[in-house]
Amino acid sequence: MKGLFITFEGPDASGKTTQINRLKSFLQEQGIEPLMTREPGGTPISEKIRNIILDKENAEMLPVTEALLYAASRAQHVGEVIIPALDAGRIVISDRFLDSSIAYQGYGREMGGMIKEMNSPAVYGIQPDITFLLKTDPANMRSRRSAAEEDRMDAQKIEFHQKVLAGYLAIAEEEPERVKVIDGERDIDVIAEEIAAITAEFLRNRG
Amino acid sequence: MKGLFITFEGPDASGKTTQINRLKSFLQEQGIEPLMTREPGGTPISEKIRNIILDKENAEMLPVTEALLYAASRAQHVGEVIIPALDAGRIVISDRFLDSSIAYQGYGREMGGMIKEMNSPAVYGIQPDITFLLKTDPANMRSRRSAAEEDRMDAQKIEFHQKVLAGYLAIAEEEPERVKVIDGERDIDVIAEEIAAITAEFLRNRG
Repeated sequence: MKGLFITFEGPDASGKTTQINRLKSFLQEQGIEPLMTREPGGTPISEKIRNIILDKENAEMLPVTEALLYAASRAQHVGEVIIPALDAGRIVISDRFLDSSIAYQGYGREMGGMIKEMNSPAVYGIQPDITFLLKTDPANMRSRRSAAEEDRMDAQKIEFHQKVLAGYLAIAEEEPERVKVIDGERDIDVIAEEIAAITAEFLRNRG
Repeated sequence: MKGLFITFEGPDASGKTTQINRLKSFLQEQGIEPLMTREPGGTPISEKIRNIILDKENAEMLPVTEALLYAASRAQHVGEVIIPALDAGRIVISDRFLDSSIAYQGYGREMGGMIKEMNSPAVYGIQPDITFLLKTDPANMRSRRSAAEEDRMDAQKIEFHQKVLAGYLAIAEEEPERVKVIDGERDIDVIAEEIAAITAEFLRNRG
């Protein structure tokens, strides 16, 4: 594949959206129009699947069902959007990808290796060229959030997010070449420069 | 688990529904009220997932997406309905189960071992105690169908159903103890008696 596949990962409120927009601007300044996408979602069918997951009527949904629905949503996203764009030589930037499922369901919800297994057919053998993991301390997350969001955080518990972060760091340790751990507690501009520099270097090395 | 899990499998129009009802009656005559269920479906969430699969608006759906949605639907069916019923000592009769996915997607659509892999978490380690595979020749299916149904058969092609049947027979060869191949071309009463006899023997041996 001729394109470049970049993903952003990190705990909730780790500043992903801001940094994704900064990288998009950086690329646009160089005349590159990246394809912006996100998970869960990314296609109309993926959105419909996501609606089933989020629908409060479906309170009986079991964790395995939910994880398989996320995998189905991803399969559609990869096959319909990501692979065709990469084949066409585009730079694809996705807000979350497989690592989110591994960190949130595999580690956070302690579903283990099952998550990787069920997602194996969903990614059609592709993986990101670069993953920016924005590392922030879940204990510091409150200050970035509104009161309403803080309530939700309380409900989901800080411990859960500590497990998610530990999962992300385990992935980064397994695949240090792909996963760039970025200290997300620093100034936004400093972080954006680091991400732009890594991306620029990757593009140069590819020629 | 204290219950008994019986599944019926076979190509479309193999006479499953008739035989399922006959086995139900046979058990009821002995004072046993089996739990009747079916796939795809079996729970409200499974039905919603099924609706996404069948919705003609979703023409872009990829085979892997569809297979993962079937697996998600099954995970909910197993966890919410089948396992609790078996734990409560019920006899559960399901019209189709995992073997259908393996035969239709794995063999018919040539998706191979991926189907078994993605369904592994969906079945929570359970498998049927007895599977009745109604073997009918796809070339003979037309005569049992209405004209409208025959059109659909034409569209899906007889060759596809030959591959499905070959898949079923491969499963039966791998697991001869579980999968009882029943010649479905015979008289309905003769088939029903054979199925009742096998079930009765199984119940006797269990004590």
